[in-house]
Amino acid sequence: MYKTHKIAILGASGYTGAELVRLIATHPKMEVVALSADRKAGMEMSEVFPHLRHLALPTLCKIDEIDFSDVDLCFCALPHATSQRVIKVLPKTLKVVDLSADFRLRDPEEYVKWYGGEHDALECQAEAVYGLTEFYREDIRSARLVAGTGCNAATGQYMLSPLIKAGVIDFDHIILDLKCAVSGAGRSLKENLLHAELSEGYHAYAVGGKHRHLGEFDQEFSKLAGREVRIQFTPHLVPANRGILGTAYVHGNAQEVHDTLVTAYHDEPFVKVLPFGEVPSTKHIRASNFCHVGVVADRIEGRVIVIAALDNLTKGSSGQALQNANLMLGEEETEGLMLAPVFP
Amino acid sequence: MYKTHKIAILGASGYTGAELVRLIATHPKMEVVALSADRKAGMEMSEVFPHLRHLALPTLCKIDEIDFSDVDLCFCALPHATSQRVIKVLPKTLKVVDLSADFRLRDPEEYVKWYGGEHDALECQAEAVYGLTEFYREDIRSARLVAGTGCNAATGQYMLSPLIKAGVIDFDHIILDLKCAVSGAGRSLKENLLHAELSEGYHAYAVGGKHRHLGEFDQEFSKLAGREVRIQFTPHLVPANRGILGTAYVHGNAQEVHDTLVTAYHDEPFVKVLPFGEVPSTKHIRASNFCHVGVVADRIEGRVIVIAALDNLTKGSSGQALQNANLMLGEEETEGLMLAPVFP
Amino acid sequence: MYKTHKIAILGASGYTGAELVRLIATHPKMEVVALSADRKAGMEMSEVFPHLRHLALPTLCKIDEIDFSDVDLCFCALPHATSQRVIKVLPKTLKVVDLSADFRLRDPEEYVKWYGGEHDALECQAEAVYGLTEFYREDIRSARLVAGTGCNAATGQYMLSPLIKAGVIDFDHIILDLKCAVSGAGRSLKENLLHAELSEGYHAYAVGGKHRHLGEFDQEFSKLAGREVRIQFTPHLVPANRGILGTAYVHGNAQEVHDTLVTAYHDEPFVKVLPFGEVPSTKHIRASNFCHVGVVADRIEGRVIVIAALDNLTKGSSGQALQNANLMLGEEETEGLMLAPVFP
Amino acid sequence: MYKTHKIAILGASGYTGAELVRLIATHPKMEVVALSADRKAGMEMSEVFPHLRHLALPTLCKIDEIDFSDVDLCFCALPHATSQRVIKVLPKTLKVVDLSADFRLRDPEEYVKWYGGEHDALECQAEAVYGLTEFYREDIRSARLVAGTGCNAATGQYMLSPLIKAGVIDFDHIILDLKCAVSGAGRSLKENLLHAELSEGYHAYAVGGKHRHLGEFDQEFSKLAGREVRIQFTPHLVPANRGILGTAYVHGNAQEVHDTLVTAYHDEPFVKVLPFGEVPSTKHIRASNFCHVGVVADRIEGRVIVIAALDNLTKGSSGQALQNANLMLGEEETEGLMLAPVFP
Repeated sequence: MYKTHKIAILGASGYTGAELVRLIATHPKMEVVALSADRKAGMEMSEVFPHLRHLALPTLCKIDEIDFSDVDLCFCALPHATSQRVIKVLPKTLKVVDLSADFRLRDPEEYVKWYGGEHDALECQAEAVYGLTEFYREDIRSARLVAGTGCNAATGQYMLSPLIKAGVIDFDHIILDLKCAVSGAGRSLKENLLHAELSEGYHAYAVGGKHRHLGEFDQEFSKLAGREVRIQFTPHLVPANRGILGTAYVHGNAQEVHDTLVTAYHDEPFVKVLPFGEVPSTKHIRASNFCHVGVVADRIEGRVIVIAALDNLTKGSSGQALQNANLMLGEEETEGLMLAPVFP
Repeated sequence: MYKTHKIAILGASGYTGAELVRLIATHPKMEVVALSADRKAGMEMSEVFPHLRHLALPTLCKIDEIDFSDVDLCFCALPHATSQRVIKVLPKTLKVVDLSADFRLRDPEEYVKWYGGEHDALECQAEAVYGLTEFYREDIRSARLVAGTGCNAATGQYMLSPLIKAGVIDFDHIILDLKCAVSGAGRSLKENLLHAELSEGYHAYAVGGKHRHLGEFDQEFSKLAGREVRIQFTPHLVPANRGILGTAYVHGNAQEVHDTLVTAYHDEPFVKVLPFGEVPSTKHIRASNFCHVGVVADRIEGRVIVIAALDNLTKGSSGQALQNANLMLGEEETEGLMLAPVFP
Repeated sequence: MYKTHKIAILGASGYTGAELVRLIATHPKMEVVALSADRKAGMEMSEVFPHLRHLALPTLCKIDEIDFSDVDLCFCALPHATSQRVIKVLPKTLKVVDLSADFRLRDPEEYVKWYGGEHDALECQAEAVYGLTEFYREDIRSARLVAGTGCNAATGQYMLSPLIKAGVIDFDHIILDLKCAVSGAGRSLKENLLHAELSEGYHAYAVGGKHRHLGEFDQEFSKLAGREVRIQFTPHLVPANRGILGTAYVHGNAQEVHDTLVTAYHDEPFVKVLPFGEVPSTKHIRASNFCHVGVVADRIEGRVIVIAALDNLTKGSSGQALQNANLMLGEEETEGLMLAPVFP
Repeated sequence: MYKTHKIAILGASGYTGAELVRLIATHPKMEVVALSADRKAGMEMSEVFPHLRHLALPTLCKIDEIDFSDVDLCFCALPHATSQRVIKVLPKTLKVVDLSADFRLRDPEEYVKWYGGEHDALECQAEAVYGLTEFYREDIRSARLVAGTGCNAATGQYMLSPLIKAGVIDFDHIILDLKCAVSGAGRSLKENLLHAELSEGYHAYAVGGKHRHLGEFDQEFSKLAGREVRIQFTPHLVPANRGILGTAYVHGNAQEVHDTLVTAYHDEPFVKVLPFGEVPSTKHIRASNFCHVGVVADRIEGRVIVIAALDNLTKGSSGQALQNANLMLGEEETEGLMLAPVFP
């Protein structure tokens, strides 16, 4: 089959890189022409990710070995901070979807606040479009550089953004309790990510407003509300590999909340609002680009629970990136992304 | 070793029954003299629970085959509704620790509301003591019938009861988001409890104020507050076997909340309050009778997160029952219960 | 996109039925026109399998409500014994891929021996083709009724059939130790399949030559060898959802064994032989139609270990069935099946 | 309670160190007086292992800070190679139970062969007793230095040693297929031990006779047989935290094999032979010092399957070490070790 778009993936030896390759493998209009992984340059992708053994893929290389004149779009799946230094020196005409946190925060001071250092590529930041497709679709279509959102940030925004925009919930009482699977932490060698440490155990982390994705919530929710909005956000790590389940506690009218979400996502191919009173499960969106959202009225009048589930590696990261890339390349937004969830 | 107290366990073929046997196996003052399991009467415990193979245990029998004159204390690990019918006809002098929900709610109307039918043993209900040891210790010491609390109800009360009693949190803004392991659902054959359905997936259930343990929260928190208190409570099922992690969102002063809990549990052998700002994990209390509680201040002034972890089968059920039984029999409360958590 | 082939799936409420729907969802030439599930007739597929919520699928119905004149090919994912009674009365011109065990054994006496009763549709058995695509490709292409193999049987044959055919291993010393994930047991409510029972534990079952898939091994290996071949086969249940890992202990020359497998699978799209000395993992074929095979020489001269991994629900069942259906319908064998494995 | 024996644990920050502390916590005759962990010296054990938070334990220190004149017995849970250098310079009168591999192989050449370097403490090796309690009980009782066996090596010997000693199986056809949980790999930061890599996947490793525990099998089996015995041994890593399941394929008479094991373990407190034809599961020995062994006759005359399950951290390592320490200190062998397995 003729492949229209030539794709490079920088940082291909991490989970989001591998997920991009998995998705592009059955994409009818994309062809991977370059894969970088600095420390693993020279290795075959099948050595790093044997599950991709059946694919004919370019050998892993260093970034400066890539001829970007031959590339239509570049996915950047590098670590935070590294990403900005790399993207800064890429050809300025190259379309880029960045999966790191580097270009998510428009205000440089917010970047310093949440990431602890000066931003190194503010000129790129200026042109970056925030990459939550459903809310920035038209901007993304014409963007050169798109900043993929955080996986937790995506989950919370799918649940709350339409509600804040419509003003149907109390902005001062928003609590988001998130349950995240472990692949969100990446392929990093940390003791608490070991199977023996995580399996059969679960716990909260970054409790009390310390998680960096709060920067995105603050930015996007305040913009939508037209005033400062600060939510409470507690992520938890649970013993599963893929999935984020968000449970939001808000004040409002449950039926109105449900109606607002149904309307907001009526024509969306990937965000599915469940019938009123039903709740989603991560097992029903695993390895797919779908997000399921449910709304339940609490027994206490005026209190509403909104629950959403998505796959952090797909809809929360690489699937979202591909969705954006489709738009940037003038393709159908859903191309290559209609894979059904894997269950059981 | 000489064993002082002769113990019967009714409903020994369920998880809480097995957990009682596990704990009593190394208890220096108790001896299991009778084990009932109606449908499995005649079988050996080692056939039903091969992990108990090394123990010399009585053959499973029907309840009416037990000579209760030979029994000092009876644990009743039967299903809800069955329990009240059985306990009603047990000798009135027999000490009983019930692990079911049947005698937890003092108000018969509340029982009807949450359990959907008339109570069949109201005369027993009248004498039942609510079995959360740390809060009813003296009553339990002299009780004949103790009603073990729900595992979720226990978790929430360890987190919130001292705070409500001390009046240091806003009674109208209490949200409890719970993450429960699957053994809490018992050994019941339900599709959503299958490994293939649960592993790698997680979801909320009984959302919006439908979970029966709310009856216990309403009863105990209102009693402590001296007014009606209604909390929001959302349980989630996570892919693990043992453990409950509760995340409570309350309004108050974080340091005061921490101080209150430290004071409340200062002399408690099993409830451990972590240093301010630290949070517990279920992996650190697994298979033990310990409960770890942590307090963190949110970035929003006046908002506090309280997190607790306990093992639903031990501290949330059978360990708690044994703790109560120790008191009822005049033994050290900690006897047989100081087993260290199993990690990893 | 124009869909050429109209597909019915009988028994759509089980895991293999759901897996068929998942795979067909992105198949460019197939359209699901009927889904049966006797006890769940009238329900929507999205109620039974919410992960398929995004698909427009026919409502579940009873088999006799299906107009088979409108169907090009029927997948039969019914339980063993039921399948033969249903297929017996289907239109004799309808192409059928059966996923049950009912038509795998050509010798009626073998059927009685392994399945414990008389076969009810011997006339269908007579025309059934054994459905391991790689070994019966040409027969399948022209078959009306194809009998999908057992998932364990498929695994063992991928490892051993080329070796037996080539005569490079000792037929009297073949041991197959299999480690199976739990979805192979289906969506059945059994105590040992509960998460609380299976998670964190593993064990052998049907030990000593009792597993029914031995009937297939006996049939196929003896046919290839031209003499009776009886292997030792021990399946184990491990705490995972998808995957079979087979470890075979054979006598022969390791390099010759590897060469034989490399040659046998050289042009196969789905069976991949690893470089000599490397071994596969189930994590690298999850949710895909690929089978990875590795060969290692033992330290003892003349002893060889052959290891293979496949996904029991995909390559071991529904993927294999679709691969056969592609051939029966004159399509590319790989159509709809090139989905990359899901990792992590 | 008066504690007779003062215990030091070197290398207390690993899993076997933590498991020793867990077991000793309820041991009536032992008191932990020193805990070393070089890189974590100065930390509290509860910081490294929060599940031990309820215990009053000495602060972690460096080895040379320990006053060994105050120590009755020292458990050495250090890494291989480190252990020999440390034990070499410990007081020569100090009782030591080593959990590393350093003193398991009596023949220095075998040590070089399997561990790839010269042994640094051959004079200690000379006095070391191989620590599989059931087979070296009397030697251990009077030993100064006991070398704990490998967890895989222990499993295989419980299955095979009595059979080899009795000569009831063919020494030239012994295959041991082992399924190991991940805690056996220790708390080491390796990619393949991450939850995201291991969960839901399983694979063989060290295939073909490369696993170091073969050194122990060769040594012990050859000694028992009075001739060289070489077995085939393939370990597999499965997604669970605790447990080893060994499946041995041997030639012999199944009933005779069973009888031999029943006789051999008749009076053993921890090794339990199941009724003929029954098989064990790791879930039934979890977190305990028990080993379950089953025997099944294969359908092929003269072929026998022997299956055993034990917990690698308890019976395979720290429990075994404590069992030996009890003997060395003149206590009951079972003291502190009768904890029932944890299920579910």
